[in-house]
Amino acid sequence: MLSTMQDVPLTVTRILMHGMTIHGTSQVTTWTGEAEPQRRSYREIGERSAQLAHALKDELGVRPDDRVATLMWNNAEHVEAYFAIPCMGSILHTLNLRLPAEQLAWIVGHAADKVVIVNGSLLPLLAPLLPHLSSVEHVVVSGPGDRSLLDGATPRVHEYEELLTGRPTRYDWPELDERAAAAMCYTSGTTGDPKGVVYSHRSIYLHSMQVNMSQSMGLTDADTSLVVVPQFHVNAWGLPHATLMTGVNMLMPDRFLQPGPLAEMIEAERPTHAAAVPTIWQGLAAELAAKPRDVSSLTQVTIGGSACPPSLMAEFDRLGMRVCHAWGMTETSPLGTIARPPAHAVGTDEEMAYRLTQGRFPSGVEARLAGPGGEYLPWDGTSAGELEVRGPWIAGAYYGGADGEPVRPDDKFSADGWLKTGDVGVITPDGFLTLTDRAKDVIKSGGEWISSVELENALMSHPDVAEAAVVAVPDEKWGERPLAAVVLKEGATAGFGALREFLAGSVAKWQLPERWALIESVPKTSVGKFDKKVLRRQYAEGGLDVTTL
Amino acid sequence: MLSTMQDVPLTVTRILMHGMTIHGTSQVTTWTGEAEPQRRSYREIGERSAQLAHALKDELGVRPDDRVATLMWNNAEHVEAYFAIPCMGSILHTLNLRLPAEQLAWIVGHAADKVVIVNGSLLPLLAPLLPHLSSVEHVVVSGPGDRSLLDGATPRVHEYEELLTGRPTRYDWPELDERAAAAMCYTSGTTGDPKGVVYSHRSIYLHSMQVNMSQSMGLTDADTSLVVVPQFHVNAWGLPHATLMTGVNMLMPDRFLQPGPLAEMIEAERPTHAAAVPTIWQGLAAELAAKPRDVSSLTQVTIGGSACPPSLMAEFDRLGMRVCHAWGMTETSPLGTIARPPAHAVGTDEEMAYRLTQGRFPSGVEARLAGPGGEYLPWDGTSAGELEVRGPWIAGAYYGGADGEPVRPDDKFSADGWLKTGDVGVITPDGFLTLTDRAKDVIKSGGEWISSVELENALMSHPDVAEAAVVAVPDEKWGERPLAAVVLKEGATAGFGALREFLAGSVAKWQLPERWALIESVPKTSVGKFDKKVLRRQYAEGGLDVTTL
Repeated sequence: MLSTMQDVPLTVTRILMHGMTIHGTSQVTTWTGEAEPQRRSYREIGERSAQLAHALKDELGVRPDDRVATLMWNNAEHVEAYFAIPCMGSILHTLNLRLPAEQLAWIVGHAADKVVIVNGSLLPLLAPLLPHLSSVEHVVVSGPGDRSLLDGATPRVHEYEELLTGRPTRYDWPELDERAAAAMCYTSGTTGDPKGVVYSHRSIYLHSMQVNMSQSMGLTDADTSLVVVPQFHVNAWGLPHATLMTGVNMLMPDRFLQPGPLAEMIEAERPTHAAAVPTIWQGLAAELAAKPRDVSSLTQVTIGGSACPPSLMAEFDRLGMRVCHAWGMTETSPLGTIARPPAHAVGTDEEMAYRLTQGRFPSGVEARLAGPGGEYLPWDGTSAGELEVRGPWIAGAYYGGADGEPVRPDDKFSADGWLKTGDVGVITPDGFLTLTDRAKDVIKSGGEWISSVELENALMSHPDVAEAAVVAVPDEKWGERPLAAVVLKEGATAGFGALREFLAGSVAKWQLPERWALIESVPKTSVGKFDKKVLRRQYAEGGLDVTTL
Repeated sequence: MLSTMQDVPLTVTRILMHGMTIHGTSQVTTWTGEAEPQRRSYREIGERSAQLAHALKDELGVRPDDRVATLMWNNAEHVEAYFAIPCMGSILHTLNLRLPAEQLAWIVGHAADKVVIVNGSLLPLLAPLLPHLSSVEHVVVSGPGDRSLLDGATPRVHEYEELLTGRPTRYDWPELDERAAAAMCYTSGTTGDPKGVVYSHRSIYLHSMQVNMSQSMGLTDADTSLVVVPQFHVNAWGLPHATLMTGVNMLMPDRFLQPGPLAEMIEAERPTHAAAVPTIWQGLAAELAAKPRDVSSLTQVTIGGSACPPSLMAEFDRLGMRVCHAWGMTETSPLGTIARPPAHAVGTDEEMAYRLTQGRFPSGVEARLAGPGGEYLPWDGTSAGELEVRGPWIAGAYYGGADGEPVRPDDKFSADGWLKTGDVGVITPDGFLTLTDRAKDVIKSGGEWISSVELENALMSHPDVAEAAVVAVPDEKWGERPLAAVVLKEGATAGFGALREFLAGSVAKWQLPERWALIESVPKTSVGKFDKKVLRRQYAEGGLDVTTL
């Protein structure tokens, strides 16, 4: 039977129109490093988005479905691009300015970006790449920076502000299908080529609602959010969309991401909320310890990207900034879990335990744990499996390129369409997730899983151990077994036997490694994570001096 | 271009599964009038919903799209029906137990309800109707009440608890199209037959998210909501769905809606939030004045249905219960506006003015004002027009009956599909709505609109006036002009000239009525509202003694 409800599409355009009317006086404040930051109301953001859309269409020939890339910091112009491009029916492609140059070039080519909007300060990154970006017809430059770097560039070069000047501040936005593509973002996978996730208008709209729900971030127009998490990083966790839906003000740091300026802008602009990865907060905590400032406005801090060390959480609690963990990935838009403790735990000893989990699944995210044999495991807080998720803002495929169908690799998507996150963890009966390892690092021993991270943490708590990495190595009887590669502190003398005995105090006996190796340092990736595939290769090639206990 | 996101339907089933797992320990508490209320966890609600669905399917032969009606108070069993029926693919039809018997019979016939689930205490209402309900094959009785009233009834009679006993607590819920019908509710229009609104799974899901957003009700699992607004009244404003999405506990008053029991359950169960129409709160305020109780837990009160008198709002403020206005109708699911003052007004003199409006449109509701000539008016806080709304939880048609297409009467829906609300009002630039009149009562004079309600309120503030109604009467020159029908207080002597002069102090000169009549009392509808069509008829038939000034 048919319902009698209106069929109204959920689109980014609807978010923009709401934000610029109902919340027209809320503001985006962008730090400039000068005495006065740049301030722009949501009404102005909306009007300038219309001007940008007119310019892209009439001056640059951008058509529906064309990809327009941004290589930008967090600032008002980037917010304008966030709305102008999807609302005109084209696709916003945010480029990660931390990626190696060759990966960036590959991504721009795969997405076939027609236009790149770039901050002037990032021209030293873009200019040398341009000869390799054959799809790019136009470069639009915004903000300070040396334009001469673009001398002789093949694409046409435009000034952002000149493009907007004099154009109509209204645009007859098309009525779009809510399932149409709105934005795309590539994962920076450590193996293989980057993968493109293409968000729909629907996925962005629903994710924004969820972010604004009371059990998620739940900010209001009384809040100002300091958006440190980059706009090229999974849509800045959805904040630029979510804020326009509820009139939350945004404070944008632009390129001023060092602890000093961050502390300064918090004191000056008094945000109530901030969102960033833990390393940013570690720097800020050190800065505040060295040079105290009035940061009392900031009471809520959302931390994602990786787990927040308990010591850092405690330190921020002392500063009056309450940290809330969230977990997600490019493929999950990103809100996958958020660690608001349940009401019954607030004020009890349990509270911190809940806050240290990755958090609870919101209503739009379904979750299950796939065990070593592919069976689904109970939510009992102890059964560890690979996390699989489903929901209207979760990817079900990757972008296949301009002429290709979307791709669904078996190791990333289940046969029934769920996303395999590659994360291994446990879930409590009330839906709190704790991640224990990456699926590729977990040791699959005799039908059970051993967490490499747990063994490493246990080992590194030994006073003689500087660093330790545990990797899976092939084993005839058990399939895989753990190998412990240990870096001792200078002058330390602990033997493998003593270390194994020490480990036995915190993990089950069958999880104890038989194979041990002393190494000088643990190999690391460019972002400082343990690079375990290097260790596995060294082992396979006989490059490690292994003792078997 | 296609997005790569999963295509996951937004369904009531998803809300149920989330509520019974992630928030499995949250509770529905139902007042019983006994020492102990009935308590049921969301997990139990979910399991019993599965049992009810099995019973409806296997025992009563309910099929997809079949209508299952409820004639029930707010209680846990009604919540179970709210989920079991839509999740199995059938349609929940909530019956308004305040309607005249013949209207109820007409509605059941129009919806072709196959089953009625009824509370035992409502059998005196249902039993005499049954001979007229030819579509009804089964009656399911829940809770206390005299079953002998059903002796000799044609439909088969079942006991709710017996039906559930022993059935599986899991149900293989079908994957439904999010646009499929989930529930229906008839309007109690004062003119013509009642109109059926058919909610979809999608509309209910999105409305629930909006209710949970920080700028709407924004409750969390630390809250308990006292749901006084009936479940047969636009899905109890969406609370039974919204609460399962966030783990908010529900306190259900069942049939104990008198001020005494309400005060008692607030003191005993300590809800933090309540939702009801103003009359309920007026009674509660009087009760608390006569017999003080500890109602300090209750800090948030959502009031809708009609505007809350400022004096009542002030009184509740004094009691520590902060009143928040909301506006909606059966056709709007119902959240149309909610009066959270903007952050800049909080703590200022403006705050109360904002709180006394109907409120601000949430992100999912678009609004426009249609002026007397059909043109759309600016949001300037003074231009009055008929409110038209659009959104994914707004009706775009009415149910056309079992064999009919949905109907879209021109006076209810615009050519481009917006709902004409029949309410006249103004909207401020920041999107706050103030309703001033019903469209059918407004006086359309020379291309301008005169609010009958404003004139009435101004007249009734004269010390000699007991009651006054203003209606539109035909006028050759202006199209329509206001006629003032006045009831003087006993012994009062004010003449029409003096009253007209008094009015001139508060309304524009061109709005002043020329036609005046003394009457003994203002005709009223069954629910106590001014029945202006009676006055208009009396005028047309020459039944009023009219003086023209």
